[in-house]
Amino acid sequence: MAIITLTTDFGEKDHFAGAIKGAIYSELPDVRIVDISHSVAPFNVPEAAYIIQNAYSSFPKGTIHMIGIDSELNPENKHIAVKLDDHYFICANNGIMSMICSEIAPQKIVEINIHDRVASSFPVLDVFVNVACHIARGGTLEVIGKIIETIKPIKNLIPFVSEERSQIIGSVIYIDNYGNVITNIKRKFFEDVQKTRTYEISARSYKFKKIFEKYSDAINFEIQEEKRYDEGKRLVVFNSAGYLEIAVYKSDNATVGSASSLMGLKVMDTVTVNFSKT
Amino acid sequence: MAIITLTTDFGEKDHFAGAIKGAIYSELPDVRIVDISHSVAPFNVPEAAYIIQNAYSSFPKGTIHMIGIDSELNPENKHIAVKLDDHYFICANNGIMSMICSEIAPQKIVEINIHDRVASSFPVLDVFVNVACHIARGGTLEVIGKIIETIKPIKNLIPFVSEERSQIIGSVIYIDNYGNVITNIKRKFFEDVQKTRTYEISARSYKFKKIFEKYSDAINFEIQEEKRYDEGKRLVVFNSAGYLEIAVYKSDNATVGSASSLMGLKVMDTVTVNFSKT
Amino acid sequence: MAIITLTTDFGEKDHFAGAIKGAIYSELPDVRIVDISHSVAPFNVPEAAYIIQNAYSSFPKGTIHMIGIDSELNPENKHIAVKLDDHYFICANNGIMSMICSEIAPQKIVEINIHDRVASSFPVLDVFVNVACHIARGGTLEVIGKIIETIKPIKNLIPFVSEERSQIIGSVIYIDNYGNVITNIKRKFFEDVQKTRTYEISARSYKFKKIFEKYSDAINFEIQEEKRYDEGKRLVVFNSAGYLEIAVYKSDNATVGSASSLMGLKVMDTVTVNFSKT
Repeated sequence: MAIITLTTDFGEKDHFAGAIKGAIYSELPDVRIVDISHSVAPFNVPEAAYIIQNAYSSFPKGTIHMIGIDSELNPENKHIAVKLDDHYFICANNGIMSMICSEIAPQKIVEINIHDRVASSFPVLDVFVNVACHIARGGTLEVIGKIIETIKPIKNLIPFVSEERSQIIGSVIYIDNYGNVITNIKRKFFEDVQKTRTYEISARSYKFKKIFEKYSDAINFEIQEEKRYDEGKRLVVFNSAGYLEIAVYKSDNATVGSASSLMGLKVMDTVTVNFSKT
Repeated sequence: MAIITLTTDFGEKDHFAGAIKGAIYSELPDVRIVDISHSVAPFNVPEAAYIIQNAYSSFPKGTIHMIGIDSELNPENKHIAVKLDDHYFICANNGIMSMICSEIAPQKIVEINIHDRVASSFPVLDVFVNVACHIARGGTLEVIGKIIETIKPIKNLIPFVSEERSQIIGSVIYIDNYGNVITNIKRKFFEDVQKTRTYEISARSYKFKKIFEKYSDAINFEIQEEKRYDEGKRLVVFNSAGYLEIAVYKSDNATVGSASSLMGLKVMDTVTVNFSKT
Repeated sequence: MAIITLTTDFGEKDHFAGAIKGAIYSELPDVRIVDISHSVAPFNVPEAAYIIQNAYSSFPKGTIHMIGIDSELNPENKHIAVKLDDHYFICANNGIMSMICSEIAPQKIVEINIHDRVASSFPVLDVFVNVACHIARGGTLEVIGKIIETIKPIKNLIPFVSEERSQIIGSVIYIDNYGNVITNIKRKFFEDVQKTRTYEISARSYKFKKIFEKYSDAINFEIQEEKRYDEGKRLVVFNSAGYLEIAVYKSDNATVGSASSLMGLKVMDTVTVNFSKT
């Protein structure tokens, strides 16, 4: 049974996601449709890129991922289908795929050319569904598009490293549901620059000298729970997706606050790592 | 495999939608359940009517649509099951079906009468699930209700046209996830009044003289991207559901603003079209 | 076909729930995954306990419920799998199961011990998925953990009753999507204390002398609709889950207000019932 996933900025309320699902089931009664997210911020391509990168690989090979963010067809925004890591991705050529493609070379990219009538304002329904069902039936990408070699990049994907390699200048790329602040500094990138040196991470006026493996590691469980005052503790981890993340222990934006709300960190803000002289 | 869709105001957090799904799978292990929306504003019948109208028709014929909005049984609010366009709808007789029924005549309407015990405060679980499973098993509507001929209307469904047909007075019926402002003026209705005349659309102090086919059509792509200042551009389209919609290009309520936030437009506000004398 | 449900605080936006689903389908292509809620407030164990308690029992026997709230493994927070009422629950031993277990004795509890490598910050993906798939394949709990006898309790589960049984002192445990205020006073508990006495329910300065069976029962439908002014009416019901609930008729936090917003009632607030002397 083919799997089709959906990642969009349609929100949880409107009819868009429901209409998409109905159209897919009308074509393919036995397919499995899985929502990854419909709550990407409107037109926020970097956010969508982060979400799909970290969700796709747990699905079986052959899964088809429809990404409906800023997907209206126009002279600057073409539709593409990408085969990568034996998964299929259908989206606009607006940078969404550049985060994944920076790590894994695509096996094939086509620019979709089945738009035989005036393109609509709802291309996910009118175009992407057809492409997804074509792939789910075993169709090849060449039938629905012409092969292209490169895709549109997004900015701020890779952190900057100073010439003498004493500093990484990264930036915030995502704020998660817990208000945790996720940077574009990946573990391997960090360790390649670090070697064996000590370091200090700076975000606004906040400094950190240790990166934990998981949130609880910042807590000393030998102290009695009543005497610890752990909630609200600021810390840095490599998160489960492998990104350097500034977090607050057991955070909640709506009550105790979070890394984002308590430290005033937003997407695009700078996070710096300074390494010792050795 | 039968498909049952859910459109409710239960929200994303509470146990209600989960309990419904469990009850359906307990009755029918092989059914397919599809969420259309659980984020309809509480008790907002017109919103639900707009969402179900624009989602249902992409599903296969025979699909059963459960609509859980303001569905508590009381002397003024009966439960109905409607067959229309070869789809089935189960809901309260509170106006939800009047938007769809204004365009397509129902094939059959029954007032549900299987309430053999004190009606509960959770009729979607206690009544609608039974009705949906009955229909999914091939049961007829007559077994679970008595045939009625008319359903309760909602107001403001059809725009007003001035006597000399020089003006359409419509109203805002829905604000979508992008803050786009959707009116009750449908394309066919508009064109029937317009004939070949030019027009001016007014919403508060904002005026528009053109209706685009899609959002990008408002943008001149011959100008370099850096020099265009397109984000935030106000425009009017017939949206993918066929309604006249006031939009802002690449809007986002939370950041750059939207048609709703930037022009101060809300549900029930008036939108007027004045036609030239020709 | 096995059913696995998900109840988490992952939110609607992040990749976490999507990644979980992909991992489950990779292991078990034919399983059915049902979202109960991903919008539990971050780390809010009592909220999750209320949601899972009221959703689980409508699912078929044998259903596997994964609960991802505050689930990072640490010296104070172990992972457990519980068989209860012929359902399976996988969660951290942080109190989530104590609400259900206070009413139904567990058939078996094991502390999960398959953590053969450094525990991650995403145990729902790295541990719970494996446990769920093991159970779905018919595996026994003893294979993935060692049997334990007791689980961690949560506070404020049971209301206080005064010595002379003239008073119940309960507290608010949940605010639902309609802003309704749900207390920890269950119908059977109330009636056992009440016997045949009259009562007065107090929340802040608000007093109620009647508990309705459903919301509409508070409305006098013999008065014409235009003359009733019912929206905004305050009332008390035993809700569909059997809990004493303070509600506002046809409430909506965002427009007309709700029991929570209009009466200023929050989780942990006290609700008191005073019984007559009789």
